[in-house]
Amino acid sequence: MERAHENTSLLSGRVVQGNHYTEEAGKGIRRRNAGVAVHRPSNEEFEPTEVLSDKYQSSDYDVIENQLYCEEEQQLAQKKIHSYIWQLEVKRWFVMLLIGMITACIAAVVDICIDKLAGSKYSLVALYFEDRTDNMTILIPFFLWMSIDIALVSVASLLVVYGEPVAAGSGIPQIKCYLNGVLVPHVVRVKTLVCKVVGIVFAVSGGLAVGKEGPMIHAGSVVAAGVSQGKSTSFKKDFKVFKNFRTDHEKRDFVSGGAAAGVAAAFGAPIGGVLFSLEEGASFWNQSLTWRIFFASMTCSFTLNVLLSYYNGNPWSLSSPGLINFGEFTGIGYHGYEILLFLLMGVFGGLAGALFNAINYKLSVFRIKYVYKSVLCILEVIVISILTVSLSFLSIYLSNDCQPITDSVQYPLQLFCGDGEYSASAALFFSTPEQSVKTLFHAHEGSIKPTTLIPFCLIYFMLATLTYGLSIPSGLFIPSLLAGAAWGRLFGIFLHYLSPDLFSDTGLYALIGAAAQLGGVIRMTISLTVILMEATHNITYGLPLMLVLITAKWCGDIFNHGLYDIHIELHSVPLLKWGPPPLSSHVKAGDVMSRPVITLNTIESVGKITEILQQNEHNGFPVIDPYDQSGMHGGTFRGLIIRSQLSVLLKNKAFTSWPTSTAPRRRIELDDFRNEYPRFTEIEDISITDREKECSIDLRPFMNPSPYSVSKEASLPRIFRLFRALGLRHLVVTDGHNRVIGMVTRKDLARFRYSSHRERGLQELPVVSI
Amino acid sequence: MERAHENTSLLSGRVVQGNHYTEEAGKGIRRRNAGVAVHRPSNEEFEPTEVLSDKYQSSDYDVIENQLYCEEEQQLAQKKIHSYIWQLEVKRWFVMLLIGMITACIAAVVDICIDKLAGSKYSLVALYFEDRTDNMTILIPFFLWMSIDIALVSVASLLVVYGEPVAAGSGIPQIKCYLNGVLVPHVVRVKTLVCKVVGIVFAVSGGLAVGKEGPMIHAGSVVAAGVSQGKSTSFKKDFKVFKNFRTDHEKRDFVSGGAAAGVAAAFGAPIGGVLFSLEEGASFWNQSLTWRIFFASMTCSFTLNVLLSYYNGNPWSLSSPGLINFGEFTGIGYHGYEILLFLLMGVFGGLAGALFNAINYKLSVFRIKYVYKSVLCILEVIVISILTVSLSFLSIYLSNDCQPITDSVQYPLQLFCGDGEYSASAALFFSTPEQSVKTLFHAHEGSIKPTTLIPFCLIYFMLATLTYGLSIPSGLFIPSLLAGAAWGRLFGIFLHYLSPDLFSDTGLYALIGAAAQLGGVIRMTISLTVILMEATHNITYGLPLMLVLITAKWCGDIFNHGLYDIHIELHSVPLLKWGPPPLSSHVKAGDVMSRPVITLNTIESVGKITEILQQNEHNGFPVIDPYDQSGMHGGTFRGLIIRSQLSVLLKNKAFTSWPTSTAPRRRIELDDFRNEYPRFTEIEDISITDREKECSIDLRPFMNPSPYSVSKEASLPRIFRLFRALGLRHLVVTDGHNRVIGMVTRKDLARFRYSSHRERGLQELPVVSI
Repeated sequence: MERAHENTSLLSGRVVQGNHYTEEAGKGIRRRNAGVAVHRPSNEEFEPTEVLSDKYQSSDYDVIENQLYCEEEQQLAQKKIHSYIWQLEVKRWFVMLLIGMITACIAAVVDICIDKLAGSKYSLVALYFEDRTDNMTILIPFFLWMSIDIALVSVASLLVVYGEPVAAGSGIPQIKCYLNGVLVPHVVRVKTLVCKVVGIVFAVSGGLAVGKEGPMIHAGSVVAAGVSQGKSTSFKKDFKVFKNFRTDHEKRDFVSGGAAAGVAAAFGAPIGGVLFSLEEGASFWNQSLTWRIFFASMTCSFTLNVLLSYYNGNPWSLSSPGLINFGEFTGIGYHGYEILLFLLMGVFGGLAGALFNAINYKLSVFRIKYVYKSVLCILEVIVISILTVSLSFLSIYLSNDCQPITDSVQYPLQLFCGDGEYSASAALFFSTPEQSVKTLFHAHEGSIKPTTLIPFCLIYFMLATLTYGLSIPSGLFIPSLLAGAAWGRLFGIFLHYLSPDLFSDTGLYALIGAAAQLGGVIRMTISLTVILMEATHNITYGLPLMLVLITAKWCGDIFNHGLYDIHIELHSVPLLKWGPPPLSSHVKAGDVMSRPVITLNTIESVGKITEILQQNEHNGFPVIDPYDQSGMHGGTFRGLIIRSQLSVLLKNKAFTSWPTSTAPRRRIELDDFRNEYPRFTEIEDISITDREKECSIDLRPFMNPSPYSVSKEASLPRIFRLFRALGLRHLVVTDGHNRVIGMVTRKDLARFRYSSHRERGLQELPVVSI
Repeated sequence: MERAHENTSLLSGRVVQGNHYTEEAGKGIRRRNAGVAVHRPSNEEFEPTEVLSDKYQSSDYDVIENQLYCEEEQQLAQKKIHSYIWQLEVKRWFVMLLIGMITACIAAVVDICIDKLAGSKYSLVALYFEDRTDNMTILIPFFLWMSIDIALVSVASLLVVYGEPVAAGSGIPQIKCYLNGVLVPHVVRVKTLVCKVVGIVFAVSGGLAVGKEGPMIHAGSVVAAGVSQGKSTSFKKDFKVFKNFRTDHEKRDFVSGGAAAGVAAAFGAPIGGVLFSLEEGASFWNQSLTWRIFFASMTCSFTLNVLLSYYNGNPWSLSSPGLINFGEFTGIGYHGYEILLFLLMGVFGGLAGALFNAINYKLSVFRIKYVYKSVLCILEVIVISILTVSLSFLSIYLSNDCQPITDSVQYPLQLFCGDGEYSASAALFFSTPEQSVKTLFHAHEGSIKPTTLIPFCLIYFMLATLTYGLSIPSGLFIPSLLAGAAWGRLFGIFLHYLSPDLFSDTGLYALIGAAAQLGGVIRMTISLTVILMEATHNITYGLPLMLVLITAKWCGDIFNHGLYDIHIELHSVPLLKWGPPPLSSHVKAGDVMSRPVITLNTIESVGKITEILQQNEHNGFPVIDPYDQSGMHGGTFRGLIIRSQLSVLLKNKAFTSWPTSTAPRRRIELDDFRNEYPRFTEIEDISITDREKECSIDLRPFMNPSPYSVSKEASLPRIFRLFRALGLRHLVVTDGHNRVIGMVTRKDLARFRYSSHRERGLQELPVVSI
């Protein structure tokens, strides 16, 4: 089962675990050739949720306040403190403005392209449907439809498989990881953005059960990561601006804004976007950052609104704040007694969502095991596409739900209906998913028969399950909403049948069903509630939406996790959970930490540094003072230096003592580090002569002189809170005399997962190489 | 200027600073007789924003994970881990449910009482207005009106002055302090709640320019603090439930829920409530806590909705989610070009808010200096009440704005208008403020003349400025909204006059003006935006509201801080700001910390402990190991013990070595600490015999063995983030050999305030006794 494999598509099908697990001291693994040579597990030993991959790096969110940094700040503070702070602040707001506007433009382009492409397709196919005369000729539009769809989805699939595998799926799991502090390789590159954006246009136009909303969040994040750096590594172009933002800390802050802008663009939900970023970022509430995130999402929603209003022919009407539009709910609200029914729907949504997740999990494991070759991936997409078209066609063909034509139907198909009528089934299947959602929410009572809804609901549920995880960009929101809206409307029709007076608004039930289904699949918490409230444009439904989402989450959580979390677990990402395992105060740092730790001396020889960097892949190295030995023990802890800094120091030959005792050639400045960010030179690519290896480097001006550290008595919850609140990567564990005895990284914490369902208690997860 | 003073009313007029500043080592000051003997500064030396008061304790948000705690957890973990976690979780949710429901009941009672009381008042006075025949007889209703108002506000004032001074004002500053980690004395007591709730009913009914919304947030918080503890110290009743929640950590978490419930009750804004708590609490986003806060605010909004719907005669119509109701905005939304006008209004709102704050600041300083005697406080309230009635009466009397009567007017006064008409001026002045807001928002175009609006706006602005800070419970939202709505509507009328076609919706401009004014006064950020959006019940106005609030905040911030912050600063509360001072990385722990630190040995003599507790008022004591001396230096840092723990140990005679070497009489358990919480026995009240003083206590099982500590190289921003994210009270500073060299507390950080307006740079604030 061993083979070389070029594709490291992540979190969305076709996934290959990292290899050569060498987490000896657990210090934030760094892989040079991640995913090139991959060991595949035999089928028996493969248990995806029981391992942690070593493919992912953590981000260095903690600011390295070393001597250089303090000197730079002190200079600024002495000279012109206000103008500098002011400049930096203006730059930050300006970048957020750019992020919002560019994300909005991308969203508008995607929307317009899909509108044009899908429009042409449906118009063309509809033309041939019109010409149908008997059961044979109706196969002409069927095959036309199918071939167009296959062509479209193939483009999307090719882009993902041969372009950038990480562009597959919705992108939300990857952004969750990024905001949590785990860097998924390639996730914020320009190439990913192009593949994602073009791919989603073709995937949606190709009629698959996918939405374009999730990918917008990914797109916004990539835009943010790109714009904020003022340079493009892919295009080898450095604009020499925003140099101060070239750190993991600033970059992640901007990506928060980008993700929020993406949510704002997708759902017209600027506040929901802010909450999404805060919830996933989960550092402490940083007021000025939150304002900037707010600004980005607001700008994005507004710009998109203007662009789409202009496109729709009503400039300045500002009626399209987001890509998805639930339309106007003009109902009279709800009655108190209906809340019980909503809760019931929440329960059903949770169950349905759990079923969805269970099926998709099995399918994903199957895909990881068997469907990983590029050709197979593309074939699978085509097969699903054929299945989608065939089932849609069959449903339309067999349906006899004819309705009088109104303006709200986008591509009315007459088919076997009388003149002036259209097929209600076709209105659902033969349309973009967004349009179908609106139809289910707003079509007036009686305009869709249960005989149309039942097959639609079942088919769409199945198709959505099959589709998520394919090698195409694919949002999960719309398919979930559609399936839920269908059964919700069915329920509404049933109630209306029982008592037409008490239950008049079937559209409301469709909305609640949609929320329940989405909540059951995603379990996405508080931001989701706000997103749905904003998308509904009507605050009256706030309370029912909240209740339904909480109920759905609780019911679903009995069986499995949310789909995003399932996919993150499937790929063994060392994600930090929301909280520490319960009742774990008796687990101490000494139990969690990795050891022994490789340390460096404050003044260290170049030879030893080179050797250490070459021989292991750790990322952070505690610096100790060998001359300050208390008693007979080792040196005391003085600071922390990370691999990328050492790489810059070696590359720039920042040697303090040459054998000929000349001074260092040039003073190393912060800009030397910033210019290399984020792709630092590998140790293999730095040439160090044997003579240079005899030199030494004084690490003290460069190391972080006060990294967070804890005593070995510190409890697991305490360590967890430090990591979560401050975005740590390394936490040094010291003994009573301030000597380094161990190191805790994100991976050490992630290993201590607590699985309440499996009664595992606090047992440690195996970290194996697969 | 020195005098004894019993009242320590806080943050809202009549404030007296703490005395005898003994912040020698800055370890979280604890005062035994706070506010009893007060030094008043001479007028020259009084500079309220330049000092820190020593009157406030910090809360111990950090969980003390000592040996007892770990043992208790480990026992539970071994026995029945799931049932225990489950029980605790269910209890937490149940408490939140109670908090939501009780807060809603209080809100409903307040609303109904005000409705009845103010209704009776207006009906009675209106009766006498009807009988007027000439200019003399019209003085009868005037004096009647005035005497009723004086009687009502006197009750409110008496309750505050002689009942509980901390019940004055809106309570939001105090809750901000509480959530930030500063305990304002008496703020969450039952007595405060009673005075606040009864007081607000009388103050609002008494016709002052106050709202009942802010006090609801305070009320919710008190309810939360009370319910979660399962006992009442005031009533000496221990229900023996919720013992696990008797720590500062759990209590603050519940108070977050209570504050959110209060916001939900006040504005019908459950999401805004959650955001308010998160924003002010500002620890990192704790997912399960956030859900519970959400649940509390949702429950509260729903319960209040049911109660008020029932009271209004439409059970289950669920149309009153909050006390304030902006009514239905049925306008067509807004046009893109109007956004520029909104921004302009934001600028104006910022300026008007800054003016409001500047006047109120001067007034508050004046009050602190001169109006602090109980009698003066009550007299001042009565004077303002007379002024309010007189100005209102004059405006009504001089106005000639007659409008045909419609249903929407609550207490129509005919006055000098023709039959079937009412005085529009009276509709604004002769009504509860909530009703006036609705009138300004929704009265149809032309129903209020500019000649009515201009005096109303000016008078109300002035009255609101004068009223906030009086010795009565007084919300700030409604007065600000009213003043803003008035000038906003004026602006709308002006635009309508310019172009009736382009600007038809004057109510929208009233809304935007209200938001601008409120934003200018409070500068309350993201939660405020969401609160207003939810109160408006219409998401369409989200973007303009955001824009206006941001603009108003920016403009106002040029001149001064938000009013709540001004009042917090006036009382020298060591509040932690949103972020560290900019460019302060070169300020190190060594510069910030206080020293020398009083330490205890791991096994310490009772005599020394007693002496230390008696002779100083510090709260946290580092524990060092005297036998583990590295080299010739002092002992190494082993843990931290706080005053309340020592008090319990002494009281329970938890001595390890008696002179006669008998074992300790009884094992000390966590419940011993819980039963004393939150009012621990003072050291003076514990009798220690001379013989007992020779005993010793082993502090190791009780101390926190792994408190957060930093090296002296740690920068100010780093320390700040630790405090902010983890809610710290003490941070021990150690040297390279893990020996204690200093201590950083909240006060040490607050001293390093950075005032951008005054070009003060990073200079240290004097901490003086005033």
